[in-house]
Amino acid sequence: MRHIGIVMNGVTGRMGTNQHLVRSILAIRAQGGIAGGAETLMPEPILVGRNPTKLRALADAHGLDRWTTDLHEALAMPDAEVYFDALATPERAAGVRAAIAAGKAVYCEKPLADDLATALDLARAARAAGVKHGVVQDKLFLPGMLKLARLIESGFFGRILSVRGEFGYWVFEGDWQAAQRPSWNYRLADGGGIILDMFAHWEYLLGDLFGRVKALTALGANHIPERVDERGERYRADADDAAYAIFELEGGVIAQMNSSWAVRVYRDDLVTLQVDGTHGSAVAGLREVRVQPRVTTPKPVWNPDLASPIDYREGWALVPTNDPADNAFKAQWERFLRHVAWDEPFGWDFVAGARGVQLAEAGLRSWRERRWIEVEELKP
Amino acid sequence: MRHIGIVMNGVTGRMGTNQHLVRSILAIRAQGGIAGGAETLMPEPILVGRNPTKLRALADAHGLDRWTTDLHEALAMPDAEVYFDALATPERAAGVRAAIAAGKAVYCEKPLADDLATALDLARAARAAGVKHGVVQDKLFLPGMLKLARLIESGFFGRILSVRGEFGYWVFEGDWQAAQRPSWNYRLADGGGIILDMFAHWEYLLGDLFGRVKALTALGANHIPERVDERGERYRADADDAAYAIFELEGGVIAQMNSSWAVRVYRDDLVTLQVDGTHGSAVAGLREVRVQPRVTTPKPVWNPDLASPIDYREGWALVPTNDPADNAFKAQWERFLRHVAWDEPFGWDFVAGARGVQLAEAGLRSWRERRWIEVEELKP
Amino acid sequence: MRHIGIVMNGVTGRMGTNQHLVRSILAIRAQGGIAGGAETLMPEPILVGRNPTKLRALADAHGLDRWTTDLHEALAMPDAEVYFDALATPERAAGVRAAIAAGKAVYCEKPLADDLATALDLARAARAAGVKHGVVQDKLFLPGMLKLARLIESGFFGRILSVRGEFGYWVFEGDWQAAQRPSWNYRLADGGGIILDMFAHWEYLLGDLFGRVKALTALGANHIPERVDERGERYRADADDAAYAIFELEGGVIAQMNSSWAVRVYRDDLVTLQVDGTHGSAVAGLREVRVQPRVTTPKPVWNPDLASPIDYREGWALVPTNDPADNAFKAQWERFLRHVAWDEPFGWDFVAGARGVQLAEAGLRSWRERRWIEVEELKP
Amino acid sequence: MRHIGIVMNGVTGRMGTNQHLVRSILAIRAQGGIAGGAETLMPEPILVGRNPTKLRALADAHGLDRWTTDLHEALAMPDAEVYFDALATPERAAGVRAAIAAGKAVYCEKPLADDLATALDLARAARAAGVKHGVVQDKLFLPGMLKLARLIESGFFGRILSVRGEFGYWVFEGDWQAAQRPSWNYRLADGGGIILDMFAHWEYLLGDLFGRVKALTALGANHIPERVDERGERYRADADDAAYAIFELEGGVIAQMNSSWAVRVYRDDLVTLQVDGTHGSAVAGLREVRVQPRVTTPKPVWNPDLASPIDYREGWALVPTNDPADNAFKAQWERFLRHVAWDEPFGWDFVAGARGVQLAEAGLRSWRERRWIEVEELKP
Repeated sequence: MRHIGIVMNGVTGRMGTNQHLVRSILAIRAQGGIAGGAETLMPEPILVGRNPTKLRALADAHGLDRWTTDLHEALAMPDAEVYFDALATPERAAGVRAAIAAGKAVYCEKPLADDLATALDLARAARAAGVKHGVVQDKLFLPGMLKLARLIESGFFGRILSVRGEFGYWVFEGDWQAAQRPSWNYRLADGGGIILDMFAHWEYLLGDLFGRVKALTALGANHIPERVDERGERYRADADDAAYAIFELEGGVIAQMNSSWAVRVYRDDLVTLQVDGTHGSAVAGLREVRVQPRVTTPKPVWNPDLASPIDYREGWALVPTNDPADNAFKAQWERFLRHVAWDEPFGWDFVAGARGVQLAEAGLRSWRERRWIEVEELKP
Repeated sequence: MRHIGIVMNGVTGRMGTNQHLVRSILAIRAQGGIAGGAETLMPEPILVGRNPTKLRALADAHGLDRWTTDLHEALAMPDAEVYFDALATPERAAGVRAAIAAGKAVYCEKPLADDLATALDLARAARAAGVKHGVVQDKLFLPGMLKLARLIESGFFGRILSVRGEFGYWVFEGDWQAAQRPSWNYRLADGGGIILDMFAHWEYLLGDLFGRVKALTALGANHIPERVDERGERYRADADDAAYAIFELEGGVIAQMNSSWAVRVYRDDLVTLQVDGTHGSAVAGLREVRVQPRVTTPKPVWNPDLASPIDYREGWALVPTNDPADNAFKAQWERFLRHVAWDEPFGWDFVAGARGVQLAEAGLRSWRERRWIEVEELKP
Repeated sequence: MRHIGIVMNGVTGRMGTNQHLVRSILAIRAQGGIAGGAETLMPEPILVGRNPTKLRALADAHGLDRWTTDLHEALAMPDAEVYFDALATPERAAGVRAAIAAGKAVYCEKPLADDLATALDLARAARAAGVKHGVVQDKLFLPGMLKLARLIESGFFGRILSVRGEFGYWVFEGDWQAAQRPSWNYRLADGGGIILDMFAHWEYLLGDLFGRVKALTALGANHIPERVDERGERYRADADDAAYAIFELEGGVIAQMNSSWAVRVYRDDLVTLQVDGTHGSAVAGLREVRVQPRVTTPKPVWNPDLASPIDYREGWALVPTNDPADNAFKAQWERFLRHVAWDEPFGWDFVAGARGVQLAEAGLRSWRERRWIEVEELKP
Repeated sequence: MRHIGIVMNGVTGRMGTNQHLVRSILAIRAQGGIAGGAETLMPEPILVGRNPTKLRALADAHGLDRWTTDLHEALAMPDAEVYFDALATPERAAGVRAAIAAGKAVYCEKPLADDLATALDLARAARAAGVKHGVVQDKLFLPGMLKLARLIESGFFGRILSVRGEFGYWVFEGDWQAAQRPSWNYRLADGGGIILDMFAHWEYLLGDLFGRVKALTALGANHIPERVDERGERYRADADDAAYAIFELEGGVIAQMNSSWAVRVYRDDLVTLQVDGTHGSAVAGLREVRVQPRVTTPKPVWNPDLASPIDYREGWALVPTNDPADNAFKAQWERFLRHVAWDEPFGWDFVAGARGVQLAEAGLRSWRERRWIEVEELKP
């Protein structure tokens, strides 16, 4: 049994607590650790934050005894091997640099930084120090995306032609019903904006599943320019709340992706990817995937006089859940800890994190310059 | 009863016969003509074409006695007031010019011409000659689009933010199952290509419903580069068979529209438009429309660990068919004949037709130059 | 327009009247004949039979004026080019020989003969006389079998492993409810028996779709040894009324086929073929086909304690009817007439007919000798 | 209360733990034992195995205190009356002989041995020693089979004519999705093969329900010759993975049974038996049974032009679960313990076990010799 101390910075928020602490690290502990050939890894969380009241409450709620408001104290604990950062993006670099300086393996929420220069700088620093590094790219490990990856691997699609992605839902304005997302998401000055948020996800989803993005055209929009914040006050919501984009991928696939917080959902899920190939198509959501192979593809004839004799959705079959997927965050955590302890391969390092930032910057630039932007490959 | 002779050129094809002759002109005759205040209009078709066997068979099948292979003979018939042209696009201009020269009102299938210069030239010629002129823009009169227009007029949407359009279905390659569209659609040299075909429709649909297109970015694709034609022979399918586009409309609406003959349909219909506004959203197909007003909009929370507790489609209500719509082609024919006979207003003249050609040209240019193209307003 | 006289012998029975006369020959006439490049074929039926009353009634019912009880008179009519035989099997050879002697093209119902020697003799005679010849193999042209053939052609199955066929339904014994098949089917002396009847169908279905039968083991059964005939009298039903067989096909596919008139139907159709391949499976009936590709194949775990969490039938998708199929008999008639008039290829000649008889004989011999029987290839 | 010590050898595997220990022996304990007239039987498990870590973990998990890696120590425990063996088949004989020598009652998983000679030898040894003996034949006690047995007993079928059995599902190859069965099942050298596995089940199911198998013809197949094992390595899968067989039963019933790990399931269950009799038919799965009596049997007419007017499945009625069945393994355990303690009759002794091995051997021989094999009756 090998105990690995993990300094967890910024896990008092909703996502940090639920996904990283409870459903990942504590869930790994509850299952008895991560079994390897010779040894078993047992993560030992050390909570770090600014608010001692919240920290103590969180620690107590889960029977943890190590927490501190002093990052350096935490990093100095003798068993601390890993630093995890889930702070707001602008605050991320400082903690990461401290951890690298202390020789810790570093694992971060995305986006790695607000700008590409910082992201690359962190990647270079980590490499120079010889520490292991990784970025959360959880959507790859969602059940729906795992099924989609397996479909691709199986050759189901023949040659893949195109991907249509829709992300989004209606985020309430806050006046008449409280908003379900924090107000900083809608202010540029606070690091808000859907391009910064979502293009980091599109980058690794497209890149890992279909091919690296080599060029894009994007249009941001600011559909709802005024909102009401957590305290009931109107504010100027100046960040982009929707983005309409077209991506060209290496290998020739075209991906058309819409992201929006101002759309109502007439879809199976909050994210859907329709993938069309010569031999079959799929529509993937977060958990379920439906397919239509070539042989059950109907042949519609354009005859708008009459109601269609074909029920188009009927002809799609659900991909069964043959292998129930683990929590996506936990699955990636286990891989990172195996990488740290046993040197197993891990494909999502700081350079991968920097690629997400790069794509967001390219999207913003395409919007500004009203033209296609080529995306250079970042070499690891 | 006022009899109006209509020279119908090129109606031996599937669309010409079914939509224009049988379901429009003959249907108007069957219903006893078009009733006005003082008089009733009765259309009297005169068939024109190149193949006398086909023409005779068509005339016989519908009990018509006037047909000829000589356009000038037809135009010279004493009661001929209207010239209708459903020939292939490259052949259109000649007949239209002859009809204008003969002083006839002119009504044409879309696109009016293969290029903007020709289209504008025809518009100028018609205006100079003082003849009435119109272009088929049938999709505006489809039941689904009429319901959508009524929703807009009712103020249902509040401020409209965006439109997402999807057109398309899988056109079989012709090898393993016969294709359901003619092969010339897939050859550039024969006037094929989906941008030329569909952008003319997007132009008037967007323009009439949401605001004139003032700029666009478009990416064409050639997903299936080889197909098998009507005679079972492989051919190089070099025309664009999909187009991914983003439009900026006057008034601030953004429209993201995909057109494709290489997509499988996981939608309610072959064309769907999702419209989102501050107070409600709609998804319109060719015949049916579903809506979700602000007050029944669910508030999803991002929690990909669990299957969504919300069935997103459930929360949309069907717009009832309170006023069954007439055949779309016939509805526009009736308006054009009223325009000719009684000077009633008619909004879809040759300048409107030229706008469709203009938008297709702008789309092709945006694809070529990889940038946004501004679309100047064509003044009538 | 080329008129082809067709001497139709034995079409006063149910199948002969409905399938061959009304839905094939008269339907071809009603559609205006068979269109070719330069000419159109118009079949002209000449009815032949033993019962003048029935013949006249049949001719009158369909507005036909040529019928006779004298085969030689019919064959001597100047326009008679084709002889068609739908008599009972033991009576077939005489008429066929007369037609061959008269130099007519010959088309027959199956089985071509009761024994292989006679079938081969007819094939040799036809070849020696240089006349065209064909045998009805209608099941190949059923909508379900056409869809199955297209699935095979599309590569859907990957490598095909096995076929499971079930034919049959409950034929009432005649005591308590009248039987729905003629009593001669159940008497050996009258040419009855399900092996003789069905193996001819299995031969061409398996051979054309999956590979020639190269060996078989078969067990006949006489499940219901006493029945009541058309006149209400008990009779000894000594013919095989069920057959259980396993076939080895060229190419390695195994086909297990059950045929029975003593089975109740818990299937989608009266004939079903389940085909399993490495990449997908299909269950084909007479008209509809359902498929399950590899990617939607569920992964059941053996746990008989609990009701299965999987609804096994749910996971199969219906193959759409993209190209509605013509009547199967008519489709084959059109091919035969094109073969006669224009020398187009026709794959189902008397040798093909002899193969069906050969397989039935091999089945009976396997049953008798209780061992596998190798089936030699009959060379055309 | 009478305590019966049961030495359980090899129950650390999935089936042994779940079905024999937890859901049988511990479930009997949890219900307070097996109630008889004068006394109540309470089974007392003594775990035996090779891996002390697994044994201790299993014992701890269920609050058991007796376990050992030394079979002789276990057999020597003063209360040990029964020996149970769930080891891999090749390892079974040694433990069974030791238990017989120690005078214990012996109960075994199936198959009793890999070859008939060994199986018969064990039967003779048990008889000579005067110990009670039994073999697991769980499928007889499944809810579906119990309902089927009751239907037979009720006279529902009239004279039973035939049985059609289908067992199987798709076992994934292991490349693209992990296989759901262990790789040794697919290697001949390790005792794999579906004939050895399934014919033992067919023997007692057919024998107990319909009549002893007196002859068979069988064809094995090796449909998927290469698979990927538990460690991700390709291996030569040389064992038969499908078997197509026809059985003649005493009393005249014919049973046609397919077994396959390379078939996709378009059935109600993983095992189905269709039984047809003169007065009614049934389709039985593992849990549910549907019936069609003579009086609701439809009368289909062969008319493949039209979609069938009959929905064939509609006309079958579900047999209600009037007596919920206990776990099949537990039900047989209770019978065996009653047999041991109170001498109640028990029909599934070592000779019955030997019959299963005999049928598998006959199946393999029929495949090899390509002929029917007569099956001699083994006298108990």
